[in-house]
Amino acid sequence: MPSAAHGAPQGAMPDYTAPVTDLLFVLCDVLRIDRGDFASVDRDTCAAVLTEVARLAETRLAPLNRLGDLQGCRLENGVVRSPDGFAEAFAAVCAGGWYGLDCAPEHGGQGLPHMLHSAVGEVLSGANMAFHIHAGLTHGAYSAIAAHGSAAQRALYLPRLANCRWTGTMNLTEPQCGTDLGLIRTRAEPVPGTEGRYKLYGTKIYISAGDHDLTENIVHLVLARLPDAPEGVKGLSLFIAPKFLPDTDGSPGARNGLGAARLEAKMGLHGNATCEMLYDGAEAELLGAPHQGLAAMFTMMNEERISVGLQGYAQADRAFQGALAYARTRPQGRALGAPARPEAPADPILVHPDVRRMLLDQQGFTEGARALTLWGAQLVDLARGGDTAAAARLSLITPVIKGFLTDKGVESCLKAQQVLGGAGYIEEMGLSQILRDARVTTIYEGTNGVQALDLVARKLGGDGGAAIMALLGEMTGYAAESAPEEVEAKFHAPLRAALGDLQNALLRLQAFGANDPAAALSGASDFLHLLGHVCLGYMWARMARAAGAPGVLDEPARRAKLAAGRHYMSRHLPATALHLARIEAGAVASLPLDAGAAE
Amino acid sequence: MPSAAHGAPQGAMPDYTAPVTDLLFVLCDVLRIDRGDFASVDRDTCAAVLTEVARLAETRLAPLNRLGDLQGCRLENGVVRSPDGFAEAFAAVCAGGWYGLDCAPEHGGQGLPHMLHSAVGEVLSGANMAFHIHAGLTHGAYSAIAAHGSAAQRALYLPRLANCRWTGTMNLTEPQCGTDLGLIRTRAEPVPGTEGRYKLYGTKIYISAGDHDLTENIVHLVLARLPDAPEGVKGLSLFIAPKFLPDTDGSPGARNGLGAARLEAKMGLHGNATCEMLYDGAEAELLGAPHQGLAAMFTMMNEERISVGLQGYAQADRAFQGALAYARTRPQGRALGAPARPEAPADPILVHPDVRRMLLDQQGFTEGARALTLWGAQLVDLARGGDTAAAARLSLITPVIKGFLTDKGVESCLKAQQVLGGAGYIEEMGLSQILRDARVTTIYEGTNGVQALDLVARKLGGDGGAAIMALLGEMTGYAAESAPEEVEAKFHAPLRAALGDLQNALLRLQAFGANDPAAALSGASDFLHLLGHVCLGYMWARMARAAGAPGVLDEPARRAKLAAGRHYMSRHLPATALHLARIEAGAVASLPLDAGAAE
Repeated sequence: MPSAAHGAPQGAMPDYTAPVTDLLFVLCDVLRIDRGDFASVDRDTCAAVLTEVARLAETRLAPLNRLGDLQGCRLENGVVRSPDGFAEAFAAVCAGGWYGLDCAPEHGGQGLPHMLHSAVGEVLSGANMAFHIHAGLTHGAYSAIAAHGSAAQRALYLPRLANCRWTGTMNLTEPQCGTDLGLIRTRAEPVPGTEGRYKLYGTKIYISAGDHDLTENIVHLVLARLPDAPEGVKGLSLFIAPKFLPDTDGSPGARNGLGAARLEAKMGLHGNATCEMLYDGAEAELLGAPHQGLAAMFTMMNEERISVGLQGYAQADRAFQGALAYARTRPQGRALGAPARPEAPADPILVHPDVRRMLLDQQGFTEGARALTLWGAQLVDLARGGDTAAAARLSLITPVIKGFLTDKGVESCLKAQQVLGGAGYIEEMGLSQILRDARVTTIYEGTNGVQALDLVARKLGGDGGAAIMALLGEMTGYAAESAPEEVEAKFHAPLRAALGDLQNALLRLQAFGANDPAAALSGASDFLHLLGHVCLGYMWARMARAAGAPGVLDEPARRAKLAAGRHYMSRHLPATALHLARIEAGAVASLPLDAGAAE
Repeated sequence: MPSAAHGAPQGAMPDYTAPVTDLLFVLCDVLRIDRGDFASVDRDTCAAVLTEVARLAETRLAPLNRLGDLQGCRLENGVVRSPDGFAEAFAAVCAGGWYGLDCAPEHGGQGLPHMLHSAVGEVLSGANMAFHIHAGLTHGAYSAIAAHGSAAQRALYLPRLANCRWTGTMNLTEPQCGTDLGLIRTRAEPVPGTEGRYKLYGTKIYISAGDHDLTENIVHLVLARLPDAPEGVKGLSLFIAPKFLPDTDGSPGARNGLGAARLEAKMGLHGNATCEMLYDGAEAELLGAPHQGLAAMFTMMNEERISVGLQGYAQADRAFQGALAYARTRPQGRALGAPARPEAPADPILVHPDVRRMLLDQQGFTEGARALTLWGAQLVDLARGGDTAAAARLSLITPVIKGFLTDKGVESCLKAQQVLGGAGYIEEMGLSQILRDARVTTIYEGTNGVQALDLVARKLGGDGGAAIMALLGEMTGYAAESAPEEVEAKFHAPLRAALGDLQNALLRLQAFGANDPAAALSGASDFLHLLGHVCLGYMWARMARAAGAPGVLDEPARRAKLAAGRHYMSRHLPATALHLARIEAGAVASLPLDAGAAE
């Protein structure tokens, strides 16, 4: 592989720059992080945290991103070797306590809001997604054990998971079983003469960070069946199986009967080992009640889904940064009217309207997605504080954040790559890797089709429609409030039109209802996108109003923010009408099940 | 790299199957290939050609597709080594005369319609895109020399290029210059004491198949500047520089002063060497008149642009085939209502409405794209026969075929990969490669942004609007014709609505006109997509009517065709309204040229 594209066009593939200013604007000015239980978390606290993590991400993690892609992970003698430098960098992030920001202080966490944890997560994930996934899954394991573990399990695992001294994994998929967890075959056999100890037998696939050499131990959460388990998902139990069995003092002891049997060769995310895990009599403990494993696993899964949505737009932002830098430095052609750089043989391609269109498409999406995700994180904080309405809303928008932001995130990465022209197709320029890495986000933690099914078949009507009606009511009320003229015309008015499409879509889905479930499910992905656009439009309206408040943004920043928002509202939000038309088209045709036969 | 995904889900990544039946339907029933000069080209001829090339593509080329991706090309001692088996397979295709179907019989071609050449091209490209590009560029070089070469050049090169005994390349891009060809620096110096011989000095990049070991010689067409050349694109001349200088009998003789200096590491298309070419005193002849190089190169470029559109949907079809096969065999979940496979633990995922939606999205696009591309090829035949209206229409829709079909082709490949869930992200399953290979189609031969600019700034008004008005008139007339009830309701009516959007978009672009060119160019990509959708809708209406004619398709095939068409017309054609709304949004905002500064 050539080491330097000396022949390739001049253009900067810059290092990643953490969007500290925009994160502070969203956290402190738009969403008001200091509400409720976190009155003491002021702008200075947020700024200190984000500035410090930005430095770490930009200087330690971003430089390893391409190396991780090129070098990948290797399986050697039954253990995974991570890319060079990953272990040292991981130790540095752990030592800073960055992974445990919102974990409980009694377990070594900082007790800060989940919102801030999410903002930090965007920075770490944007800098190096393959690296950061090690920690993301750990946080989910922490939450699952915190919610469902015994006192002994909590005491042993939580302090070690809070700051990633040990990492965690999530083991659901098997070769014959992905979305349909009822088909799981991995079995748990009680160990005679013990109290609550089991041995696991089975094969799990697609296990992210299933093995690595970043930490002294790995804690696997594994769905399996007890001997007396009923068939289907009601017979699944969740188990904790550490890579090394803890001694009485909690130190990693003997190697457990589990390990990575092979690694998948993937499109991207090479710096994170996707393992086939073999459980061959691995010692394990039950986490939570027997046959209640799915509910316990969903504690982890729901958290992961929000963080996957975050990964989608974090990579889109990284790609946008690369595209914008390229467009500023690559001279090609001339601006309409007067040259922008008369002294040079050509103007930077940023002068061309179609290049600006692509960049503003990306910016309008990414900044809206950031606000929506942090709003979701705020709902996590409120739900943790006992707010049941917030919990219901979080449950409703979790599939939207996961599905919509990753579909659009991949689209945004494609557009960024496109801005570079031929250079975008060259690995060395980095945009290909961003797309290849981001590509997994629409697939894992439940494909986006599964998110749409969850939204339409479960979340919309599960509570009699209470959560969606409350959300619709809030957004409709907001869009009816008086606002400065530009905000009214360019933000509130298009939001009202989109809300009308949302209302019509809900009526149509209701009309399909029980009579024609195939029609409702045929429109599920379109409904997810429709709701996603409306939520982004709502976020943009809130950002536009916040940006106009005195002293919040300086004038150039305020105008840039409004320009990106107007672009989104005028060119992307109107997609709600197209999604409504598709929902109204009803059930999709059937296709013959047998190859060769045509229906 | 693991050799077998024994742990991965069961699922077939099938070999490529050439769409012979659908190609025959489009060629013979929809577009009537036997019109005009080709009355003798009947269905039997087409069927014989396509059946034979399908066998070759499926058995010789498709099996090398993944190998080419894994092995890639190597630069060794200044020459490129192609993947194992490529040279033998290339010799087999050449020997069959498949690359010269529409070339002139006096040069060893078959004198068949370009339409049939294009249909064969889809099959060869679908089977192995990286392999086929060697031949695609050769055909362009053949056309350029046929149109602009001297008698001696034609006699020497055409018989050797017609069937790819030698291959051709196209050399435009330089490190400092891609779209903006006025920046080209490569220079041509007359060789003293010769008549019309030059030496070339310069560096060209991104040269597809710039070197390889498939053939005994390679013919490079190179844009460069003569000593007395004016600045900018008006000073470009086109040169022929063979890799080996032909002896007096035309046999490859001494090595010329040119060669691959390095290969790019690309996202995909690994089986085709993308070369940085160094011209260091390479002997060359002028092709065409001095300073008229751009026009000569555009003979080649326009042909390539159609064939890149073809590549986009050919890969989408290959991806669709893989996704459909997987959806038929992967059991997961149950159908709504009664199980489809009650004897099995789960139904194939094809029963789920959202999976069918994704597949029908792909089918509706791919079959429409096939018709549009072959319609474009028919215009090539008519234009070659002297039909100036056909030539004008071809010029108009070339950027649409290139831009729209590749944007949508990549989108379609993404959807196919999505159908496979986790397996789609695993290289071994093949969908990642298809996407990585197809990804280049929106970029090369002029990015799709350049296609949109060409369409809106040059093609729409270049002839006073004659070509677009003629096309609009034909489609409007067609949609007003009487048709069977279902065709009227499901095809003609939505086509009329889309034509209304097209008309409004044209009026709006006209209104922007000279006063606000930035607004017109801000909507260029959306206009290209709007026109692309209308063209696809027109093709679907024609296919629906042709499918209904007695004896054309059997009943199951007719119903399947109409179902895919209805899906496109009801769920995708309405995107014209969204594109119109974006055009109406006017000029995009400006972005600060300097990093750090905000507007």
